[in-house]
Amino acid sequence: MALVDLSNELAIGIDIGGTNTKFGLVNHRGEILTQGDIPTDKTPDIENYIEDIYAVLQPELEKVGSKRSIRGIGVGAPNGNYYTGTIEYAPNLPWKGVIPLAKLIGDKFGLTCTLTNDANAAAVGEMMYGAARGMKDFIMITLGTGVGSGIVANGQLVYGHDGFAGELGHTVIRPGGRPHWSTAINGSLEAYCSATGIAITAKELREKDPSSLLNDYQPDQINSKIVFECAEKGDEAARETFRFTGQLLGEALANFIMFSSPEAIVLFGGVINAGDYIMKPTREHMEKNLLPIFQQKVKLVFSELKEADAAILGASALAWEVK
Amino acid sequence: MALVDLSNELAIGIDIGGTNTKFGLVNHRGEILTQGDIPTDKTPDIENYIEDIYAVLQPELEKVGSKRSIRGIGVGAPNGNYYTGTIEYAPNLPWKGVIPLAKLIGDKFGLTCTLTNDANAAAVGEMMYGAARGMKDFIMITLGTGVGSGIVANGQLVYGHDGFAGELGHTVIRPGGRPHWSTAINGSLEAYCSATGIAITAKELREKDPSSLLNDYQPDQINSKIVFECAEKGDEAARETFRFTGQLLGEALANFIMFSSPEAIVLFGGVINAGDYIMKPTREHMEKNLLPIFQQKVKLVFSELKEADAAILGASALAWEVK
Repeated sequence: MALVDLSNELAIGIDIGGTNTKFGLVNHRGEILTQGDIPTDKTPDIENYIEDIYAVLQPELEKVGSKRSIRGIGVGAPNGNYYTGTIEYAPNLPWKGVIPLAKLIGDKFGLTCTLTNDANAAAVGEMMYGAARGMKDFIMITLGTGVGSGIVANGQLVYGHDGFAGELGHTVIRPGGRPHWSTAINGSLEAYCSATGIAITAKELREKDPSSLLNDYQPDQINSKIVFECAEKGDEAARETFRFTGQLLGEALANFIMFSSPEAIVLFGGVINAGDYIMKPTREHMEKNLLPIFQQKVKLVFSELKEADAAILGASALAWEVK
Repeated sequence: MALVDLSNELAIGIDIGGTNTKFGLVNHRGEILTQGDIPTDKTPDIENYIEDIYAVLQPELEKVGSKRSIRGIGVGAPNGNYYTGTIEYAPNLPWKGVIPLAKLIGDKFGLTCTLTNDANAAAVGEMMYGAARGMKDFIMITLGTGVGSGIVANGQLVYGHDGFAGELGHTVIRPGGRPHWSTAINGSLEAYCSATGIAITAKELREKDPSSLLNDYQPDQINSKIVFECAEKGDEAARETFRFTGQLLGEALANFIMFSSPEAIVLFGGVINAGDYIMKPTREHMEKNLLPIFQQKVKLVFSELKEADAAILGASALAWEVK
């Protein structure tokens, strides 16, 4: 019997974003051996899009083909459904309705293709290569333009009965609160703790404080990076923006902990660059809202994947996970 | 090779409550063949308590022993931990600190003993004998004196990294809201949607409405049964009590659905006897707070286990579940 040399296998990771699609060939240690990208938004015909990926990726596969075997393809995409392999009504992608993406890509390359949404892919990536290595119970929260999440319980991603579990960004944390710009639900986590939500909070707070440095910027310039810079200069409205955001994030995390009692919560995304301005109130209000049996137990950690690589790594990790 | 005749096996279910401990011998179809109970609160010494159970249960086992084999013992208890087999700091039980209950019972009877908290046991019972048969993803919510929960994802109970997952009654649904009488956390689900919370709401609402029939009762007489009777007579404050409770429960359920996307939510406990007075607003506010991809998909159903039998059945189901 020949032993399978895992170190000789590669997985393909494809991350489909609204503007660009990134892909890479990844080994078992999470090293990206080669990578590239194609535009997503220029190809409204899905068949042409598949041809485009094939045209740039297949030559790379042929280069390594004689020496390495390809385990499979993992794809992370907004509204990607693990069970059906379809992308369903994704508002930020050029293809409308239900797209059988896993089948289209799998057939084209003659490889097994696994699809899930981008936040779930990030969680699998973190479990395989990052901060959640060896953990069986953790929650991944991605704090970017939106708030995404991937939940792992008993060592498995929680997909739910229909493949759509883990929409924690849309849970309501302030009933009757700020309406979400897209879902119209009032008071959701995403409405406050995404980069978009932070910009809204900053604009609300600078109006009450004419001396705030935030008033030196045009409305469309206000983002979490600018708020951070103002906070660094001692600006109170900027610091209060992060304190308020951290409070709400902490309260939400406490609720999530009492749901699945994770060993850790892994945070990822641009928002965490605000560091202690946001993390201190997050931790404080998280602990404050927990039952004693959960207090001082749950690690609140940052992703260990490089932000530029995380999407490809997460997607590729899906291919290793398939049994 | 002899086939194992499952129909010939029995499981022991033990439900430990603050006042009484109930036990029963249960077959694979969820029929309780024999049952009994002993007081819990009269035996502050745990060794004596184990002796008491043994004294009443062992003769029953000997009766069936020649014809049937016993698969094992399942125990549901407040603060019961599945991983450690211990009951930890249960405020309503007579034994203080950490009690290695599964080991004590298992050793005494010479059988495998599995322990979990009462709401988790109810969920396993529902999956094996009740409304969640065949489901791999559902959430059980017990609405009694308190609000308990058991979460099943990917066909397995979610215990979390430490065995304490599923404390949904303590998630905050109204930040800064009503303080909980025991945890002191503000605005938790249990503070509003337990029988205790409903009585508080009814007392608040009758004060604003001098004509309410609820004013005919002493404060300690007000409970969800009385509120139901007044609602049936057309009393507005009583009906508003259930409408408000249902709204908050529905909002909480929407959050839970966006966490684990269950096929169904199974409700259990005295509170659901209020029927449509509470279920209509629950369903309405649940749907209203869901993203479209979750709407009109999740079954909201009542437990199919007889309330008197559910605790024993749930506990016994743990014994079948052990691999």
